[in-house]
Amino acid sequence: MSTTNDNPLYEELLKDYDTKLDHSGINGKRIAKRLVELSQIGFVQVGGVKRPGFSNEEKEAKVLVKKWMAEAGLTVSEDGAGNVTARLEGKNNHPAIASGSHVDSVPNGGNFDGPLGVLSALEVAESWKEEGYIPQKPYEVIIFSDEEGSRFNSGLTGSQAMTGTISEEEMAQLRDYNGDTLEQVLTHYGSTLEAFKAAGRDLAELELFVEVHIEQGKKLEIVNQPVGIVSGIAGPAWLAVEFAGEAGHAGNTPMIGRKDCLIAAAEFIQSIPQFPKTVSETAVATVGKMDVFPNGANVIPEKVKLLVDIRDINEAPRDQLIDQLIEQAEKVAAKNDIHVTVKLNTRIQPVPIAKDLQKRLAISLNKFGISPTYIPSGAGHDAMNLGRFIPVAMLFVRSKGGISHNPKEWSSLNDCVMGIHVLKDFIQDAMKK
Amino acid sequence: MSTTNDNPLYEELLKDYDTKLDHSGINGKRIAKRLVELSQIGFVQVGGVKRPGFSNEEKEAKVLVKKWMAEAGLTVSEDGAGNVTARLEGKNNHPAIASGSHVDSVPNGGNFDGPLGVLSALEVAESWKEEGYIPQKPYEVIIFSDEEGSRFNSGLTGSQAMTGTISEEEMAQLRDYNGDTLEQVLTHYGSTLEAFKAAGRDLAELELFVEVHIEQGKKLEIVNQPVGIVSGIAGPAWLAVEFAGEAGHAGNTPMIGRKDCLIAAAEFIQSIPQFPKTVSETAVATVGKMDVFPNGANVIPEKVKLLVDIRDINEAPRDQLIDQLIEQAEKVAAKNDIHVTVKLNTRIQPVPIAKDLQKRLAISLNKFGISPTYIPSGAGHDAMNLGRFIPVAMLFVRSKGGISHNPKEWSSLNDCVMGIHVLKDFIQDAMKK
Repeated sequence: MSTTNDNPLYEELLKDYDTKLDHSGINGKRIAKRLVELSQIGFVQVGGVKRPGFSNEEKEAKVLVKKWMAEAGLTVSEDGAGNVTARLEGKNNHPAIASGSHVDSVPNGGNFDGPLGVLSALEVAESWKEEGYIPQKPYEVIIFSDEEGSRFNSGLTGSQAMTGTISEEEMAQLRDYNGDTLEQVLTHYGSTLEAFKAAGRDLAELELFVEVHIEQGKKLEIVNQPVGIVSGIAGPAWLAVEFAGEAGHAGNTPMIGRKDCLIAAAEFIQSIPQFPKTVSETAVATVGKMDVFPNGANVIPEKVKLLVDIRDINEAPRDQLIDQLIEQAEKVAAKNDIHVTVKLNTRIQPVPIAKDLQKRLAISLNKFGISPTYIPSGAGHDAMNLGRFIPVAMLFVRSKGGISHNPKEWSSLNDCVMGIHVLKDFIQDAMKK
Repeated sequence: MSTTNDNPLYEELLKDYDTKLDHSGINGKRIAKRLVELSQIGFVQVGGVKRPGFSNEEKEAKVLVKKWMAEAGLTVSEDGAGNVTARLEGKNNHPAIASGSHVDSVPNGGNFDGPLGVLSALEVAESWKEEGYIPQKPYEVIIFSDEEGSRFNSGLTGSQAMTGTISEEEMAQLRDYNGDTLEQVLTHYGSTLEAFKAAGRDLAELELFVEVHIEQGKKLEIVNQPVGIVSGIAGPAWLAVEFAGEAGHAGNTPMIGRKDCLIAAAEFIQSIPQFPKTVSETAVATVGKMDVFPNGANVIPEKVKLLVDIRDINEAPRDQLIDQLIEQAEKVAAKNDIHVTVKLNTRIQPVPIAKDLQKRLAISLNKFGISPTYIPSGAGHDAMNLGRFIPVAMLFVRSKGGISHNPKEWSSLNDCVMGIHVLKDFIQDAMKK
């Protein structure tokens, strides 16, 4: 593209780039150019893109990457869920090592969340092409469809299809932002519901999946390291809590004798931060969604509904935290003479990352002088779906201010390329096992 | 109406009625019949009516009451705002003593809030007719339009028009539940905007206004008295508080270092009940309306907006409470490292009720063996608008469970008739002053 060289994103990426990182077939400028070319598909503003899953923009991004994949010597195919697999055969017929991520984005997303993982996986193949390296085992670069969930308000659609973890019932219930069904969306995309259902793959064909992703947190920035090791992918549990009291006129009801359920809800919310640290260092609990009824300025609320999002990378402490918060909600309600109901709406199993894979990632990091930092991933990733069936590993690349899903999303090219070196070393090591 | 006698409301009203209360020209059956006839206009369910201000139903209710007024010998007129005034000339040409209330209702309102005040005022005139009593001063029974505010989401429209306290700007901004302007609503009602503006009255024509209303609270029930004295009408002040923190992914943001504005808002809300009692016995503060942004289950809230409804019957303690809550919001925000803005949206002056009028009401109560209970009115009433210009007094009639704006609204006929005896005594006393 003629516009790449004077593109502000390209200039910014290369400004402080340390060209000494260009070695072993890995090329920073190629990564920068590709990030820039992808940034122009669904361009919203500098730094910002809109590429919903199954949109024309996501498709266009895949077409572009498929072209690069083919040029890198990979055999490209696409399944009925829009997942792209680019395969390099190895010396032996063996289950493949795979890496990848996604190219869709949230409505006003950034340029790194997703594309960095795809381009990193592809760059490993590019480097092998330059070096004339042929891996022992097959290698696959995968682009998963509709990871972010901005299409159907769910997410991880492609990896769910590939792992066969989306039920017919769930498929039937999906409605996109236009109110369209999954079938309608697939038809527009150029696939069919039948082909989507047939996207389920025999996961025995994969030995290991490793994903590079921006951190979406500040831990690497704080410890001043370019790349870190994901220690596990937290499974969210959503606790639906409903406090019910007695409505009343805000002016005519004396303070004494009120059954104000918002006061109880407030006491509960305020107490939440004291609990996660009692179960583990990585557990978190958050009230993000809360609705007050009838929500009238002069009416004592009669009902408050809220959701507590509870996560940890290990199931036992996560579940212990759930129990603590249920008990606390009941305690606060009883103290305030308020009725409470608590229901566990969602309970997704956390995906721990095997200690030996974390150790092998640490060995790779050490080779590049990076001190290993272990970071739990609070957000879900396609690796989470694969991780229920095959070993997975994840690398986080330092993310400025921990910002993601936003045009301000930023990882320096130095950090991105460092991540690719680590990824390559880890994969080459896995090829020999 | 042929249906009155076997009407369940009529039967319920008369079931425990003590006919010894029928004396001095006051008749419980007449009150019961009239309550029942009004209950059939805008009937929704047993106990429930829907008569929005300026609706066909409110108009029909006025037509019915106007018929009774004329039959009682009063001279009936209606102003451009739909306020009905029924006048009985006195022996002397003197400013009038007036009493009344409204006949409109909230969407699923009860049968007592409003009608009881109108029928009580009319019953005083009925009793005089039976007794052949001619008052010294003129007497007026007033029905105010659109008291509840369910039409325009405001309220007290008729008394605002009569007292000239609604500005041209406010008139221009009104939109009803259909999106219609005040002018359109008035045209449909059979009036005009010009006539509405001309409804302002020379309030020197009135010496005193006294309103009977159901309590909308439980105080009389608790002290077991049928009728009580309103000690003042609380003016609401609305404090708009906005806490702003830092959004973040609920999974990826460690508990430490969060700037979760909902935690701060919760701490603030939970602390509110400790303040009102420090300024007066009657002050109240309530958060009824609260909105969380972006209100996503997995997003740490970046903004919480809430309204604190603050009331007292005296302005000084009410304003002291406002100051305390502003200070508390700022203190909690600082402690949580959260940004806060506080804005006083609404500040309506409370209307105290003159001590000498309360004393005269107490004398009337004592005559009927009722021990005076002094109750602040947290809700606004038409008497509040009049009270800014002329002396006003209010009587509360015991209300079952304090319930109002609901089909369960209930005051026994004994209590209603007792209220009329007190009202009559108080008015006759005022006629002699």
